Amino acid sequence: MKKTRLEAFSDGVIAIIITIMVLEIKVPHGHEFADLMPLVPIFFSYVLSFIYLGIYWNNHHHMLHAATHVTGGILWANLHLLFWLSLIPFATAWVGENHFAAMPLAVYGVVLLMAAIAYYILQSLIIKNEGSDSLLAIAVGKDWKGKLSPLLYLSAIGVAWLNVWVSAGIYIFAAFIWLIPDRRIEDVVKERETE
Amino acid sequence: MKKTRLEAFSDGVIAIIITIMVLEIKVPHGHEFADLMPLVPIFFSYVLSFIYLGIYWNNHHHMLHAATHVTGGILWANLHLLFWLSLIPFATAWVGENHFAAMPLAVYGVVLLMAAIAYYILQSLIIKNEGSDSLLAIAVGKDWKGKLSPLLYLSAIGVAWLNVWVSAGIYIFAAFIWLIPDRRIEDVVKERETE
Amino acid sequence: MKKTRLEAFSDGVIAIIITIMVLEIKVPHGHEFADLMPLVPIFFSYVLSFIYLGIYWNNHHHMLHAATHVTGGILWANLHLLFWLSLIPFATAWVGENHFAAMPLAVYGVVLLMAAIAYYILQSLIIKNEGSDSLLAIAVGKDWKGKLSPLLYLSAIGVAWLNVWVSAGIYIFAAFIWLIPDRRIEDVVKERETE
Amino acid sequence: MKKTRLEAFSDGVIAIIITIMVLEIKVPHGHEFADLMPLVPIFFSYVLSFIYLGIYWNNHHHMLHAATHVTGGILWANLHLLFWLSLIPFATAWVGENHFAAMPLAVYGVVLLMAAIAYYILQSLIIKNEGSDSLLAIAVGKDWKGKLSPLLYLSAIGVAWLNVWVSAGIYIFAAFIWLIPDRRIEDVVKERETE
Repeated sequence: MKKTRLEAFSDGVIAIIITIMVLEIKVPHGHEFADLMPLVPIFFSYVLSFIYLGIYWNNHHHMLHAATHVTGGILWANLHLLFWLSLIPFATAWVGENHFAAMPLAVYGVVLLMAAIAYYILQSLIIKNEGSDSLLAIAVGKDWKGKLSPLLYLSAIGVAWLNVWVSAGIYIFAAFIWLIPDRRIEDVVKERETE
Repeated sequence: MKKTRLEAFSDGVIAIIITIMVLEIKVPHGHEFADLMPLVPIFFSYVLSFIYLGIYWNNHHHMLHAATHVTGGILWANLHLLFWLSLIPFATAWVGENHFAAMPLAVYGVVLLMAAIAYYILQSLIIKNEGSDSLLAIAVGKDWKGKLSPLLYLSAIGVAWLNVWVSAGIYIFAAFIWLIPDRRIEDVVKERETE
Repeated sequence: MKKTRLEAFSDGVIAIIITIMVLEIKVPHGHEFADLMPLVPIFFSYVLSFIYLGIYWNNHHHMLHAATHVTGGILWANLHLLFWLSLIPFATAWVGENHFAAMPLAVYGVVLLMAAIAYYILQSLIIKNEGSDSLLAIAVGKDWKGKLSPLLYLSAIGVAWLNVWVSAGIYIFAAFIWLIPDRRIEDVVKERETE
Repeated sequence: MKKTRLEAFSDGVIAIIITIMVLEIKVPHGHEFADLMPLVPIFFSYVLSFIYLGIYWNNHHHMLHAATHVTGGILWANLHLLFWLSLIPFATAWVGENHFAAMPLAVYGVVLLMAAIAYYILQSLIIKNEGSDSLLAIAVGKDWKGKLSPLLYLSAIGVAWLNVWVSAGIYIFAAFIWLIPDRRIEDVVKERETE
């Protein structure tokens, strides 16, 4: 079974998800600067989700790069991940159109949490398949980001009913930690090559 | 004629179909939990169709992997399959928005049935092209899932006017049988290699 | 400049065009068979445009397969073709929603005519680039379909004001002639190989 | 890290952006020629944005062709570029639906300006990575188009409040200069090869 086609299909789905979100930024009827104002929260929720989808694409890219072959289970775990990612545009639009109200923010967190769990399942299946001494297994051993993220989403879901801005801040922070250059897999590759 | 481009185009179309379905889950105007309730049937019909499209992508992937070359007839049989798959988002949304009413459920079954027939035509053309002693021909000889599915769709179409939940249950069951690991093609490949 | 990326981009755009057309088949509010009736002309215009886009993808596939390299002019001629193809969903929806009225049918023909001209320009640039003794040049020398199609579109545009059904019939006929197996390029390839 | 997947993802996103723009050309309710009239400015803004996205795809194609490898920074700079490009359909529709009013025209310019800056950042990162004696560095040294474009966008943003037609004319002119055959990278490649 060819890894290439799994990558191509995932790239296609993520590319479409990241792009159709922009369809939720409805064109205002007026043509004044003030007509753009209701779009500000929608714009910021779009930016945040764009970054999250970029992170997923990036991580997915690295993970599959380290994988050597693909099983039926991996195909379905991958589709499961894409399913939760496909709900991000819905959650994003609901957050944006309700100006960061509590329930939409919590649902946004649930979608992110489910995507994180789906990613973890996919990663575990690939590692199981590659073996515990594989590049990916070693690289992921240090995966503090992967472990911290679900806790952050959970806390943001809870905090949403106390203070929506703190909740939104946690989502921004949880995205931010992924933007720190992450050389886990490259480092392990280099270490091995220099041994 | 390159198989790669046929795969890439099919992947693109299936990726788009699977993703635009989510556009039918319209963002609710309120921001309470209750506002999500009308979306529950839409969500479940989305999950079911996502799984069906995942099954088609998965099977299509295996079938083309076993094919060695592509004719004009195969190109058109493939487009025919993509045509019926492209109607799944419409049928899905109609089922979901009408809370699993009889007629939408029957139309859903007709679309699935036509897609199954289109898949069968495509498979037959590829087998005819590859020869009856090809990997694909041998693997498909055991194809009880491919033979059972259209019968299940037909029964679900009929049952829709008696009991919509039984009808919906048949669609769920018909998807479920495909999720059982299907090693038809891999098995034959392995048998041949070990001979 | 890599031909592969031009093919991938064109495949992506055509896959999106062919799929987003289905978004124009709006889900009816009722759940009776009668609620599907207003969709019948929309459905038929969708089928026709799906076939046209399939033909373009098919021909584009063959033409680029025969091309050996790509220039800046070819890139832009290709984008020009994709531009006119991207208007097919609009024209299709307008035809369908107005039950094959004269003006939408004529506009549909104008879009098809412009796409045919764009295809001809692209083909001419590739042939100029490949040389008059290239496979593509020889294969296209017999291109009666490419020459007849624009005339059919022109006549369908004119006839739309006399009788919309004859006009629609001409569009169907013009698509039909392309479905006749077209072995132009393959034949020339085979002739050369057997010489 | 594979350049191919970055190209494929970017192609996918640009293909989707360029195609979903057409969804903003809403099908008119009437079926007379007059019903098309309100769409004329929308059509022209679509044409202009199609050309801009074609230019970006074309330039992106050349730039990545000259790149030999890809870093995490380049991945994110590329996503940043895609983000601004993804806002082009929104800005295009706003311009078109308001018949080229001042504020939409200025916002259109801001999106183009941000995309140009994002492109410059991406290009700088690739050049930094490839080295100052790389093909890309030498080719870009003569990059008068890349330097002139942001100035043109800035002037068009300012002029929008004085005269919208002059402003629109500047956007058209800024696109036009990119359509002049640009052999920067090919020329450098050829020079090197003939040395």
